[in-house]
Amino acid sequence: MTAGEVGDFARLDLGRAQRRGHGEAVFCEGKTAEQVRAIAAELVARGARTLFTRASPEHAAAVHSVAADAVYEPEARLLAWPPAPPSPTGGAVVVLAAGTSDLPVAREASLTATHLGRRTELIADVGVAGLHRVLGQLEVLRAARAIVVAAGMDGALPTVVAGLVSAPVVAVPTSVGYGASFGGVAALLTMLNACAPGVAVVNIDNGYGAGHLAAQIAAPHG
Amino acid sequence: MTAGEVGDFARLDLGRAQRRGHGEAVFCEGKTAEQVRAIAAELVARGARTLFTRASPEHAAAVHSVAADAVYEPEARLLAWPPAPPSPTGGAVVVLAAGTSDLPVAREASLTATHLGRRTELIADVGVAGLHRVLGQLEVLRAARAIVVAAGMDGALPTVVAGLVSAPVVAVPTSVGYGASFGGVAALLTMLNACAPGVAVVNIDNGYGAGHLAAQIAAPHG
Amino acid sequence: MTAGEVGDFARLDLGRAQRRGHGEAVFCEGKTAEQVRAIAAELVARGARTLFTRASPEHAAAVHSVAADAVYEPEARLLAWPPAPPSPTGGAVVVLAAGTSDLPVAREASLTATHLGRRTELIADVGVAGLHRVLGQLEVLRAARAIVVAAGMDGALPTVVAGLVSAPVVAVPTSVGYGASFGGVAALLTMLNACAPGVAVVNIDNGYGAGHLAAQIAAPHG
Amino acid sequence: MTAGEVGDFARLDLGRAQRRGHGEAVFCEGKTAEQVRAIAAELVARGARTLFTRASPEHAAAVHSVAADAVYEPEARLLAWPPAPPSPTGGAVVVLAAGTSDLPVAREASLTATHLGRRTELIADVGVAGLHRVLGQLEVLRAARAIVVAAGMDGALPTVVAGLVSAPVVAVPTSVGYGASFGGVAALLTMLNACAPGVAVVNIDNGYGAGHLAAQIAAPHG
Amino acid sequence: MTAGEVGDFARLDLGRAQRRGHGEAVFCEGKTAEQVRAIAAELVARGARTLFTRASPEHAAAVHSVAADAVYEPEARLLAWPPAPPSPTGGAVVVLAAGTSDLPVAREASLTATHLGRRTELIADVGVAGLHRVLGQLEVLRAARAIVVAAGMDGALPTVVAGLVSAPVVAVPTSVGYGASFGGVAALLTMLNACAPGVAVVNIDNGYGAGHLAAQIAAPHG
Amino acid sequence: MTAGEVGDFARLDLGRAQRRGHGEAVFCEGKTAEQVRAIAAELVARGARTLFTRASPEHAAAVHSVAADAVYEPEARLLAWPPAPPSPTGGAVVVLAAGTSDLPVAREASLTATHLGRRTELIADVGVAGLHRVLGQLEVLRAARAIVVAAGMDGALPTVVAGLVSAPVVAVPTSVGYGASFGGVAALLTMLNACAPGVAVVNIDNGYGAGHLAAQIAAPHG
Amino acid sequence: MTAGEVGDFARLDLGRAQRRGHGEAVFCEGKTAEQVRAIAAELVARGARTLFTRASPEHAAAVHSVAADAVYEPEARLLAWPPAPPSPTGGAVVVLAAGTSDLPVAREASLTATHLGRRTELIADVGVAGLHRVLGQLEVLRAARAIVVAAGMDGALPTVVAGLVSAPVVAVPTSVGYGASFGGVAALLTMLNACAPGVAVVNIDNGYGAGHLAAQIAAPHG
Amino acid sequence: MTAGEVGDFARLDLGRAQRRGHGEAVFCEGKTAEQVRAIAAELVARGARTLFTRASPEHAAAVHSVAADAVYEPEARLLAWPPAPPSPTGGAVVVLAAGTSDLPVAREASLTATHLGRRTELIADVGVAGLHRVLGQLEVLRAARAIVVAAGMDGALPTVVAGLVSAPVVAVPTSVGYGASFGGVAALLTMLNACAPGVAVVNIDNGYGAGHLAAQIAAPHG
Repeated sequence: MTAGEVGDFARLDLGRAQRRGHGEAVFCEGKTAEQVRAIAAELVARGARTLFTRASPEHAAAVHSVAADAVYEPEARLLAWPPAPPSPTGGAVVVLAAGTSDLPVAREASLTATHLGRRTELIADVGVAGLHRVLGQLEVLRAARAIVVAAGMDGALPTVVAGLVSAPVVAVPTSVGYGASFGGVAALLTMLNACAPGVAVVNIDNGYGAGHLAAQIAAPHG
Repeated sequence: MTAGEVGDFARLDLGRAQRRGHGEAVFCEGKTAEQVRAIAAELVARGARTLFTRASPEHAAAVHSVAADAVYEPEARLLAWPPAPPSPTGGAVVVLAAGTSDLPVAREASLTATHLGRRTELIADVGVAGLHRVLGQLEVLRAARAIVVAAGMDGALPTVVAGLVSAPVVAVPTSVGYGASFGGVAALLTMLNACAPGVAVVNIDNGYGAGHLAAQIAAPHG
Repeated sequence: MTAGEVGDFARLDLGRAQRRGHGEAVFCEGKTAEQVRAIAAELVARGARTLFTRASPEHAAAVHSVAADAVYEPEARLLAWPPAPPSPTGGAVVVLAAGTSDLPVAREASLTATHLGRRTELIADVGVAGLHRVLGQLEVLRAARAIVVAAGMDGALPTVVAGLVSAPVVAVPTSVGYGASFGGVAALLTMLNACAPGVAVVNIDNGYGAGHLAAQIAAPHG
Repeated sequence: MTAGEVGDFARLDLGRAQRRGHGEAVFCEGKTAEQVRAIAAELVARGARTLFTRASPEHAAAVHSVAADAVYEPEARLLAWPPAPPSPTGGAVVVLAAGTSDLPVAREASLTATHLGRRTELIADVGVAGLHRVLGQLEVLRAARAIVVAAGMDGALPTVVAGLVSAPVVAVPTSVGYGASFGGVAALLTMLNACAPGVAVVNIDNGYGAGHLAAQIAAPHG
Repeated sequence: MTAGEVGDFARLDLGRAQRRGHGEAVFCEGKTAEQVRAIAAELVARGARTLFTRASPEHAAAVHSVAADAVYEPEARLLAWPPAPPSPTGGAVVVLAAGTSDLPVAREASLTATHLGRRTELIADVGVAGLHRVLGQLEVLRAARAIVVAAGMDGALPTVVAGLVSAPVVAVPTSVGYGASFGGVAALLTMLNACAPGVAVVNIDNGYGAGHLAAQIAAPHG
Repeated sequence: MTAGEVGDFARLDLGRAQRRGHGEAVFCEGKTAEQVRAIAAELVARGARTLFTRASPEHAAAVHSVAADAVYEPEARLLAWPPAPPSPTGGAVVVLAAGTSDLPVAREASLTATHLGRRTELIADVGVAGLHRVLGQLEVLRAARAIVVAAGMDGALPTVVAGLVSAPVVAVPTSVGYGASFGGVAALLTMLNACAPGVAVVNIDNGYGAGHLAAQIAAPHG
Repeated sequence: MTAGEVGDFARLDLGRAQRRGHGEAVFCEGKTAEQVRAIAAELVARGARTLFTRASPEHAAAVHSVAADAVYEPEARLLAWPPAPPSPTGGAVVVLAAGTSDLPVAREASLTATHLGRRTELIADVGVAGLHRVLGQLEVLRAARAIVVAAGMDGALPTVVAGLVSAPVVAVPTSVGYGASFGGVAALLTMLNACAPGVAVVNIDNGYGAGHLAAQIAAPHG
Repeated sequence: MTAGEVGDFARLDLGRAQRRGHGEAVFCEGKTAEQVRAIAAELVARGARTLFTRASPEHAAAVHSVAADAVYEPEARLLAWPPAPPSPTGGAVVVLAAGTSDLPVAREASLTATHLGRRTELIADVGVAGLHRVLGQLEVLRAARAIVVAAGMDGALPTVVAGLVSAPVVAVPTSVGYGASFGGVAALLTMLNACAPGVAVVNIDNGYGAGHLAAQIAAPHG
C-alpha cells in the first residue's frame, strides 16, 4: 500500500495543500460512516487540516470518534478539524443569504472561507423583493475582496449585487422554491445569465465550493 | 440591530404594505419552527397583518405559540393573522379547481385573496373533460373582475375559460397527474401557450401567488 | 358555409369582441400570405378592428392589398387596422424594456395595449445591472395600473419592479442572451420564480399577449 | 442481391401490405433524390401502392421521373402513387385542425387516411379559444369512427373533443407556437396528459402517422 | 346543489356514459379517503358502473365502506364496482408486458378493458432481448382487434409488435429502468418515435388510459 | 405452459447463454420477492448460472430460500449463483472508481465481470482532481484488455484514461454529486462527449451493464 | 515552438499512435480551412496516417492542397490520408444502418474502422419495422467481432441485435426523425436503456467514434 | 432627456466605471447597426473606454463610422475603443483553449482581460485527450493570478487544471461538439460539477464574461 491509501477504498491526496494552497475536503455523502472514520483517522494522524462536507450526524459521530474536538455545524452539514480556524489573511469575504431559507448554504460557504483563512461576514435576508435591504449594506459590500451570494427562487440577487461593486461575486443557487424552481435550476440559470459581468457560478447548494472559490479569490499574494 | 431584524436570520420588510399595498408573507418552507416563531412574534408585536405560507403543522404550532388566534388551514398550508379578513373591497375574485385533486392549491389562492381583502368564490371540479360543468358557471365567471384557475394534468381549463370572459385569468398549474405531467410542467406549458390571450401564469402549486395576483388585479383604484 | 368561414381554412370568431371585450387577433406565422389576405378582406368587409401579429413583410403586403391604410410596425411584426387606435380609457399601462435588444417585444406589447384602448408609455434600457435607471422611474411606475416588463438574459427586472409598486407586473421573457439563456427559458424561469408576488408571466417573446393582458388589467369597469 | 434490395442503400419490405394491411411508406427526409428515384422505380415496377412522406420538391421531381402520374401535395409534403385512392371501406375519419397554421399537418393526415382507403373529412380552425366552433361540429364528430386532431400552441383541442364523443381521438401535436411551445413539446405534453381518456398520441408534426393510425382504427373487420 | 355535486369538492359527470360510451373513472390520487368515500356513495346510489384508479389501500377501504362488494386489485391500484364486468362485446384486446416489472401497469390496462366490456388476454415477459418470446405469440396477436404493450427501459417492444400485425398498438411506457430511463421518459420517446406506424402512445404508467383506449378501438359498432 | 414459463409472470430466456455467450440476469427491481423466488427456483433446478441484479435484502432472502449458497454483495445489490465464478479466460478487466462514493457501482461491475469469467481488478479513488493518482496506475491500465470507469460529479475520468491507453474504456456514470449533477446526467453527458475516442457509455449506475460489456470485449475468441 | 505546434492554434499529439494504437484525428468543424490546411501540411510532412472528420468541401479542398491523394467521402464528411487503408488485422466489424437515412453516419463508422485496419462490412436498411430484414443477416452478424448499429427515430435496432449475438454492439444514434426525436436524443436514450446488455453507446451522429471504438474492440492482441 | 439617454432606445450607465472598476460593454446582438452607431457616438464623445461584444461586421462598420481607430477582432466578434489597452496592472491572466475550435471564445476572453488592464497570455489546443500538453504548461499556469479555460465537448479541462494550481479557474463552456453536447450544455454541466473546487463557471460561449471575471480576480488592490 502506497502512502495515502486508506483500506481499499480511498487514496488521500496528501500533496494537495502544497499544490493548491488548501488541503483536500472529504465529501461524506455516499460514504459509509466507517469509511469516513478511517479517512479521518488517517488525516488526523498526519495532522492534516481538513473539512468534512455533506456530513450527516452519523458521519459526524464517526469523525468525533477519532477527533473528539472537531467542530460540527449540523445546519451546514460541515465538520472542521482542527476546530480553530487559522489566523485570517488576505481580503475580506462577505456572504449574503437572499432569504432565511438560504441560510444553510450560506453558512456552509461562510464556515468554509473562515476555515481556509479569510475574515468572513454573513448577512441574511436581503432579497431583491425589498431592495432597500441590500442597498443598506453597500458599505460592507464595497469593502469586500470577494462576495458570495446564496439565493434560491429567482436567483436575482447576485446580478443586482454585481452591478453595485467591483469585487467578483460568487453565486451559489439554492434548491429553495416552488415547483418551477426545479430544485435550484431556475436560480442557476439566472446566475449564468446575469446581465452584470463579474458573476462566478458554482453548483446548486454547493456552499463549500462557493466558500472555497471566494477564499481563493481573496487570498493574499505576493 | 436595525428596525426589522429578527435574530441574525431575518430582516422584515416593514414598508412593504405601504409600498406594495399588501404586507410581506412569510414563506415557511426551509425555515425552522423557531425561526418562524420569532418572526411571528415580531410581526404580531407590530400588529402587522400577515400570511404564513407553506406552513407545516410544526410551523403552525410555532405561530400559535405567539398568536393563539391565528387561523390555520392545513389543506392549504396557510396561516393568517389576524384571523378575520378585512372587509372586502374592489371586484370579485372567482377561483376554479379543475379537479378535486387541485383543491389544496385552489383553496390557498382563495384564502389569500380573501385575506388581502377581496370577495372570493371557489368552484370545484369543472374540468374540460365534461365541458357542461364550466359552461354552467358562465354567469358567475362573467361577473368576476379576476379569475384564478388551478389545474393539473393537461392544464387546459384556463385557456377555455379565457376564451369565454373578458376578465384576466390567473392560471396556476398543479403537480397533479401521471408521469409525463412532470410534476406540473405539462400544465405550466399548456398555460404559457394558451391560444386565448389574457392568461397570466404563476409558478406550479403557487396558490398564494395566484391569489395575490388576482387580489391586485381586482383591487379598487381611484 | 356558415358566417365567419373564410375559404376552407379559417373560421372567424366574430363574437369575440362582445364575449371577451376585444376582437380576435390574426397570428400570421405559419399562414400563407394568401390566407392572411383572405382573412383580412373578410374582417375589413365587416369593419372589425383587428391586429395581425407575427407578420412578415409578405404578410403585411397581403393585408395592405385589401386594407391600404393598415399600419405596419416591422420591428414589432404587428399590423393594426383601422390605423388609429381607439380613444384611451381605463388606467395607464407602462412598458419597460430591460435592454435595447428587448425593444421589439416591448414595442409589440406597447402597440397592442394602445390599439386595445389604453394610454401607454414605453421606457427602454432600465436593466438591473444599473439599478439607478429603474429607480429613476418610480414615479411613472407608481402611477400605472399595469406594468409590462420585457427582459431577456437573467430576466431579473420584473421581480425588482414588482417589489416597488402595487400594480400587477406582466413579465414577458425575451429570447435575448448567451447560450444558457436557452432562447428565453432562463428568463422565463426567473419570472415564474419571482420572489416578489404580483408577477404575471406570459410566453417567451409574446409581446402581443403581454400587451393584451395589461390592457385587460387596466380596463375600465363599472 | 435478394428480392427487395435497391442498390446498396435500401431493402424494400415487400410483405408489409400483407402482414400489416398497408404497404410501406417511403420517408424521404435524409434520402437523396437519386435514392428516392431508385426506390420509386422499384416500387412502381412492382405495382406497389405507396406513399412518399416528407417529400421536398426535389424528391417529388425524382418520383415524377419514374411515375409521372403520382400526385404531390406540397403543403403536406406527400406523394401518392397510384394517384387515385382505393374505394373507401370501413368507418369515417374526421380530421380537425385547431388553427389555420396547423393545416399542413392535418392535410397530411387526411390524405394518408384517404389513400389507405377511408372516407375522410377535414375541418379547419376550430380551436378552443372559441368553443362554439368545435361544438358546432358535434354531429359530424359523433358520426366518425376515428378522429384526428392536429393542434399546436396549448394543444388543448384533443382533450375537449375526447370529452364529447365515443370514438378514439388521435392527437398530433404541431410545432406551431411561441417560444415556450418548444417546437411542439408543450402540445405533446398536453395531449399525453389529457384528462379525458381515449386520446392516442403520435409524434410532433407526424400527420402521416396520425392518418395511418386513424385508418387502422376505422378499418373494416369481419 | 345541482345534480351530481358531491359536497363542495366534486361534480359528477353523469352524462358521460351516454356521451362517451363509458362512465367516468375516479382518479383517487390527491383525493382524501373521505372525498373518495362520498363520491363512491353517490355513484353507488345511482347504480353507476365505475372504476377507481390509482387507489391506495386507504382509498379502497373508503370505497368498501359504501360498496362492500367492489373488487380491489392492489397491484394495479384499481377498484371496480359492480365487481362483475359486463358481458364482453366487440373485438379482442391483447395486453403484453415486456418484463415482469411492467406487470402492474399491464394488469391495470387489462382489468380496465375487461370492465369496459372487452375480451382481454394478458401475456407477460416477452421483451425484445429474446425475440423468440414475442414471435411465439404471433397467432394470438394477429387475432386481436387492439393490442396494448406496456414496456419500460428501452420501450422497444411496441414498435416491433406494430411491425408484425395490422391492429393498432396502444403503447404505454412504464417507469421501470436505470437512471437514464428518467422515470419512463426514455420509453415514452421510443414509442413516440416508433419507426412502424400504428402506435398510439399514452402517458407513463397510465394503464387505465391504455386499457380504455384499447376498449374504444375494439368496441362493437354498427 | 411452454418451457421456461414461471407462473403467469415470467418467461425464462433459456437459450441466451448459447446465443449470447452468457445467461440471462434477473433484474429484481419492481419484482416481488415471491416472483424472484419462483424464478430462482426454476433457474437453480435447471442448473443455470445466474446473476440477480438490483437485489434488495428481501430479494436476497427469497433467493437464499431456494439457493442457500448464493453469494450476496449488498453494497453492489448483486447475487450470484453458483457462488464460485468460472475459471477466468480472455483478457484482464480493470475497474476504476473515481471516488469512494462511486464504489457500489464499481463493485457491481467488477463482480459481474468476475462471474462472467474474466480476471478483474478494482482500483478506487483515482479522480482527476489529483492526476498523479491515475497516472500512478498506468502500468496496470495498459495491461488491461478492457477498462471500466465509474465516475459521478463531472465524470471526467474516462476521457482522461482513454487518452492514455489503447484498450476500450467502458464509462458508467454514477448518480453521485451536487444538484446540477442531476442524478448522473452531467457525468453521462461528459462521457458521451469524451474528446478522446474509445469511450463506450452505459446507463447511469448500471454497473452490471458495464461489467457485462467489458467481459464481452475481453472475451477469448478463436 | 516545441515539436507538434502548428502556428499558435494547434498542438499535435504526435505520441498518440504509440500510446493509443491509432493516431489523432482532426475534427474540422469550427476550424478555418486555413487552420486545417496547416495542420494537414504538418501531418503529411511527418507521414502521419490521419483522418479528418466533419470535413466540409472547403476543408477537403484545404487538405487536398497539401495532400492531393487524400480520399474524401462527402456523405461521411471524412478525409483519409494516405488514401489506402492498412492491411486488415484483428476481427471483422459489421456496420448496420437501420434506415437509408442513417447511411451517412454508418458510412463514417465503416470508413473509420477500415482506415484503422479492420475488415468491415456495411449493411443498410434493416430496421425493426420489418424484422425479417435483420434476422436474414444473422450469419454475418454472428461472425463479427464487433457490430456498429446506426439508428435514428426509435433507435430500437441495437437492443434487438444485441439480443441475438455474443459480440459487443456499438450503438450510434442518428439525428434522423420527427419532432420528438429531438435531434437524436430519443434514439440515444433508447440505446442507453437497452434491455439487452452488451450495448456500448456513443454520441449522436458520431460515426467516427463508433468506428474507432469498434476497431479497438476488434483489434488483434497477443 | 437626462444624461446618458441615447434616442429613445438606450440609457448609458455612465457611473459604472467608477462603481464597478470597469465601464459598461455594449452587447451588440439584437441591436440594429444604427442603434450601435448612436451609442458608440455618445460614448466616444464622452471619451469612455468601451468594448462592443458580439459585434457583426455590420456593427463594426457602424462603430468605425464614428470611431475610425476602434480595433475589431472578427473571430472574437469584439471591438475595442480606444484601440490601445491600458498599461497592465495586477496579476497575470492565462487563457487556455482546449481545442483549436474553442479559440474564438478564448480570444474574446483574452482580449477582454487585456483591454481591462491585465497582462494576458493565450495557450491553444491543450485538451485532456493528450494530458502532456497541459502538464507541459504547469510553470506558466502556476504563475497566473487567474486562469480562464475555454472548452467544448466534454469540458473536462477546467477540473484538471483546477487540480494542479492554487489560482481560481474561470471555466467557459463552448458550443463546440457532437449532438449530445447540446450546444455547450454538456460542457457547462461538467464545469459546474468539477470535482476540484475553485472553478468559477460563466455562460456558454461567453468569452467576454470570462475575461471580465478573470480581470476582476487579478485586479490590483490596496
